Amino acid sequence: MSNPFFKNHGPFRISEIIKSLNFNISNSFIDIEIQDIKDLVSSTTNDITFFHSKKYKDVAKKTKASFCLTTNTLKTELPDSCIALVVENVLVSTSKITSLFYPDSINDNYDSTVIPINDSNLKDKVSFGKNVLIGKNVSIGKNCKVGHNTIIEKNVVIGNNCSIGSNNIIRNTIVKNNVRILDNCVIGKHGFGFFPIESQNLRYPHIGIVLIEDNCEIGSGATIDRGSMSKTIIGKNTYLDNQIHIAHNVKIGANSIIAGQVGIAGSSVIGNNVKIGGQAGISGHLKIGNNVEIGGGSGVIRDIPDNTKVMGYPAKNIREFLRDNR
Amino acid sequence: MSNPFFKNHGPFRISEIIKSLNFNISNSFIDIEIQDIKDLVSSTTNDITFFHSKKYKDVAKKTKASFCLTTNTLKTELPDSCIALVVENVLVSTSKITSLFYPDSINDNYDSTVIPINDSNLKDKVSFGKNVLIGKNVSIGKNCKVGHNTIIEKNVVIGNNCSIGSNNIIRNTIVKNNVRILDNCVIGKHGFGFFPIESQNLRYPHIGIVLIEDNCEIGSGATIDRGSMSKTIIGKNTYLDNQIHIAHNVKIGANSIIAGQVGIAGSSVIGNNVKIGGQAGISGHLKIGNNVEIGGGSGVIRDIPDNTKVMGYPAKNIREFLRDNR
Amino acid sequence: MSNPFFKNHGPFRISEIIKSLNFNISNSFIDIEIQDIKDLVSSTTNDITFFHSKKYKDVAKKTKASFCLTTNTLKTELPDSCIALVVENVLVSTSKITSLFYPDSINDNYDSTVIPINDSNLKDKVSFGKNVLIGKNVSIGKNCKVGHNTIIEKNVVIGNNCSIGSNNIIRNTIVKNNVRILDNCVIGKHGFGFFPIESQNLRYPHIGIVLIEDNCEIGSGATIDRGSMSKTIIGKNTYLDNQIHIAHNVKIGANSIIAGQVGIAGSSVIGNNVKIGGQAGISGHLKIGNNVEIGGGSGVIRDIPDNTKVMGYPAKNIREFLRDNR
Repeated sequence: MSNPFFKNHGPFRISEIIKSLNFNISNSFIDIEIQDIKDLVSSTTNDITFFHSKKYKDVAKKTKASFCLTTNTLKTELPDSCIALVVENVLVSTSKITSLFYPDSINDNYDSTVIPINDSNLKDKVSFGKNVLIGKNVSIGKNCKVGHNTIIEKNVVIGNNCSIGSNNIIRNTIVKNNVRILDNCVIGKHGFGFFPIESQNLRYPHIGIVLIEDNCEIGSGATIDRGSMSKTIIGKNTYLDNQIHIAHNVKIGANSIIAGQVGIAGSSVIGNNVKIGGQAGISGHLKIGNNVEIGGGSGVIRDIPDNTKVMGYPAKNIREFLRDNR
Repeated sequence: MSNPFFKNHGPFRISEIIKSLNFNISNSFIDIEIQDIKDLVSSTTNDITFFHSKKYKDVAKKTKASFCLTTNTLKTELPDSCIALVVENVLVSTSKITSLFYPDSINDNYDSTVIPINDSNLKDKVSFGKNVLIGKNVSIGKNCKVGHNTIIEKNVVIGNNCSIGSNNIIRNTIVKNNVRILDNCVIGKHGFGFFPIESQNLRYPHIGIVLIEDNCEIGSGATIDRGSMSKTIIGKNTYLDNQIHIAHNVKIGANSIIAGQVGIAGSSVIGNNVKIGGQAGISGHLKIGNNVEIGGGSGVIRDIPDNTKVMGYPAKNIREFLRDNR
Repeated sequence: MSNPFFKNHGPFRISEIIKSLNFNISNSFIDIEIQDIKDLVSSTTNDITFFHSKKYKDVAKKTKASFCLTTNTLKTELPDSCIALVVENVLVSTSKITSLFYPDSINDNYDSTVIPINDSNLKDKVSFGKNVLIGKNVSIGKNCKVGHNTIIEKNVVIGNNCSIGSNNIIRNTIVKNNVRILDNCVIGKHGFGFFPIESQNLRYPHIGIVLIEDNCEIGSGATIDRGSMSKTIIGKNTYLDNQIHIAHNVKIGANSIIAGQVGIAGSSVIGNNVKIGGQAGISGHLKIGNNVEIGGGSGVIRDIPDNTKVMGYPAKNIREFLRDNR
């Protein structure tokens, strides 16, 4: 994924990289410059990658990366062109190296590049309220409105005919056309991903983005977290009511309707034409099919196939739920 | 209802109105000017109304409207003075015509009429923080405080002895006396009402208001949506804790106590002296009686009679719930 | 507890105090000056205290307070040095007297002492965004960042290496070192405590604080209420996801992980190394042990012992829950 939001601070020599892991390798490699950290598939020569689970065995065999963080058991799957760096915890080491390349992706400090929109080159192009702040390199299309006190941080892209309300904070986000974002939303912050460590947790870097497709509406008080390595996506013409929480890497399809106070945990994928009732919760890493209806208050802890109506906690077939609770 | 918030952009000739519905009627009517769109009961001569369900048959017979959006089956119930306009989907057509009369009621763009309170005629009357913004024609009573960064949009009315906190957005709302609104609330935005349409949903216009009666307290992070055609009401001396979502057309009685993170879906009516525990959810279009207690975490999907204690999901008699879950 | 946040408006003569209770006592006492209102243990000579339940009998016997609000039944437990003031409702009277001493603790009006950080003595010490407001006597340590539109109210203390995001409101709070608070949070407002009274509820004064220990992260949209008489505490290295509500007097231990939209009701105590899944709710006055895991969506209504995994509503052993819901 091209990444307009996080500056790659590399290249780093492999010697610097392994120093951060308290680790030694043969002297012959120490001057090699590493350009970037990527997944097994995207990596090319002079990138470092990571391989932490057998289920990625097939792609690992073909990786073009020069180095790979991995375990003693898995390292034999790698091609000869890729030097294995055996570490105790692959994901923790990956996190550390990603943080080295992308230090801005872990802290979500306020954007210090913002200036009042009146002082920016958008001032004649956009209708805007009082105290609007615009980061460096923000792009906003035709016929857009931005409400009072809203902060649009660096590199954010907004399409045409969008109405952004007041008191919003938008970062690391691409908004397409005809989108309405109401008030008091926080869109694009890092997800809730970290490694618990006794004295001080290690934050997982989030270098992904939020993508909001055409014709969406995002209600007030939403929090939509950006992806870790991929995108968090709100599909075309999908409407979100107030106080909704969408965690990192969630992908929601087109024409879906999500009522107030719903929460969707990390990496779940929701289909098209899905209706979710108020206060329902969806666990992480699930797949919800197309044309699914989820009753209000439900707690979904398993995948749901296409064209299904569910309700309950844990959610089950809605007829069954209503029969059991007559 | 008199409507200080949404400007009626009419009158429109009936020919213009039906044009927006892709529809033809006899030439003899095309120059009639239509003043407003109202319900069957409130309409008078030269208004247009709508009639979409048999249950309104009795009031339909007596409507004084000149035109009525309806179906082929229902049109025979209308009086001779009212010309039926037969349409495929009455509510969608009503939505389109309402949007024609009240274009501002669908988009909830930021209020561009606001000015810093220091430049307004309220500056000597109200105690206020930094960066407070006040829309056109806002009225605030005696002995009120308005906190930092709060935006009070056009035509909002606030009574005496009110304390409004910081970072709030208030629109289309009437606040009575001795009310406290804490911080980060969004009060008076449109409800989550629209017609799902494949390429781009059709927003239902919300021309109602929010009414907050005397002595109420609204906790931080609340979202209270305005009514579609009627009022969303928070009754006298009712207290709301933090992060509560009240949808459009909800009416809550007096002396009720609603704990944190509760959500009440559209058009439900809650009685007096009702206690609702944290995170409980109440489905739409329900009637919750007086002196009802709803346990924390409950999901209410049926009406609840007066003087009842319920808990569970779906909520049932609290003794039964506790017995079944010992 | 020393209280930097609420100014004690006393001393008051006992005659003034009892006047506010519509109450008469012997003339011989009326000129005694009362310094403060405290609990039975902390009170010293010339303080007033309160005693409303038999379970405090043992500490009541030893109180050093000069006066005590209590009932006819309980007054015999007090030492001779302490004059009983028999009232109809001890907690209501305590609330009234506390409000007399600490009038600022009930209303949470906006802080009128704030000034732009650029005009404060923190301007060269702190990195800050636009429109940051700082109250009187705020202290911020080394190497801190404060984002746009954030309001830090009077007497708040923030340690070293903290990153505070944008649009936050922080009051009556002590933040230790290496803490990250993301965006749109309201921290330190009064809790949801009051006595329901027909015409106008009586707010319970909240003179406590919020304490956020080292290395914590607080997600966007959080509301964390201050204690009534004690502290609301977020323990060391505990992470909160988005849209979490922590009520007054809650104490959370170290190294805990709390996912999105969780709500914890007043006075509950959560141990160390506790994991709470998204949207779970915890009732008030509960004790959750160390190393407890609470599944997403759970409703916890009973204490949970150490080293236990629970899920469900009401929450029970997770294996039982999953077996019952296969």
